[in-house]
Amino acid sequence: MKLLWSPRSPFVRKVMILLHELDQVQSVELIRAVATPRGVPNPEIMAHNPLGRIPVLLVPDGEPILDSALICEFLARHFAGGDALVPSSGPVRRTQMRWQALGDGLTENLLLYRIEKTGASGGDPERLASLGAKIRACFSALAKSADKLERAPFGIGQIAVICALGQADFRFPDSGWRAGYPGLATWERQVAGRPSVKATGVKDDLAETGPSMDLKI
Amino acid sequence: MKLLWSPRSPFVRKVMILLHELDQVQSVELIRAVATPRGVPNPEIMAHNPLGRIPVLLVPDGEPILDSALICEFLARHFAGGDALVPSSGPVRRTQMRWQALGDGLTENLLLYRIEKTGASGGDPERLASLGAKIRACFSALAKSADKLERAPFGIGQIAVICALGQADFRFPDSGWRAGYPGLATWERQVAGRPSVKATGVKDDLAETGPSMDLKI
Repeated sequence: MKLLWSPRSPFVRKVMILLHELDQVQSVELIRAVATPRGVPNPEIMAHNPLGRIPVLLVPDGEPILDSALICEFLARHFAGGDALVPSSGPVRRTQMRWQALGDGLTENLLLYRIEKTGASGGDPERLASLGAKIRACFSALAKSADKLERAPFGIGQIAVICALGQADFRFPDSGWRAGYPGLATWERQVAGRPSVKATGVKDDLAETGPSMDLKI
Repeated sequence: MKLLWSPRSPFVRKVMILLHELDQVQSVELIRAVATPRGVPNPEIMAHNPLGRIPVLLVPDGEPILDSALICEFLARHFAGGDALVPSSGPVRRTQMRWQALGDGLTENLLLYRIEKTGASGGDPERLASLGAKIRACFSALAKSADKLERAPFGIGQIAVICALGQADFRFPDSGWRAGYPGLATWERQVAGRPSVKATGVKDDLAETGPSMDLKI
């Protein structure tokens, strides 16, 4: 199997954390691929995924798998031990899928905020305010779930949330979210020590100094 | 159960088609809710979903379900006959989930194109070109699958694709996609006769005359 991969993508990171948790990193060949949301879509990605996004999982026996949630489900069913991370049914599935939806949705809103803000005009103020309100509401909802995130078995839900928080740290370093949501920050600090999380964070030498995002979370 | 609903939302329409196919429309109370992507997020939606999106399914025994794919999975497992529409496992699940990812992703790109185009500046040309290329690539990929879309049992994959094509017709009436992808148009014409699809299309009296979207698909 081959994974279209980038070290900065929060959705690729979900797949990488899952592979580390399954102890299957060596089973997947990583192929560096950079999506270019503001330029021309990368033809190497488009050849496998018309949506022009990564991650994409290339499998020997079928069509490419296109979406981080579907890739994680596929890998969890393919390798031993996966059902604990991506439960197939029952209330545990519902909880994990809810957290995954919140984490992925938060990540999408953070990406949209950055795209808007870095546009030629500096972004539409109304749209930035709307995205900012949704981002803060997600943090608030996750903070209310901090106890449950800690107590529940670690799975795709917590993985998606960790990737969203990592994206906030990477692209919005001045947002101050830890001061606003100390319970969530405590949980994040515990999970940050997990080998799968530690191994997949954006390395310091890949961090870019971009324009200030001017977003308080 | 209650569904936060709007007659114009393509993701709400997925849930409504599924409910029609399950013959369970009467089991869910519809609550009109308009998301306001460019204005202030609707507080009635935000109270249940911090992402500020519809559909949201309110269930008596747990937290709201936040995402059209998760709502459709929940309803398909709740009501008899659902496993045919949202298969739980196997190659049929993989096929249906792939089409759902393509259909939902195409719908998202159509929504993003419209948001960009209706912005104060008329939209960033580079970003519009990038979204346009992805939209055309999705149509091309779906057109290549037209035979399979027809032959496979009707499910959440075809539902997501029909909702994307409906969104193209509703918001981009001059795109000319039927001329570019006649095989896909033939399949769409067949499926348009299904009662679930016919009952859920945007009604003429809800159509708006907006600015020209200037997108050839």
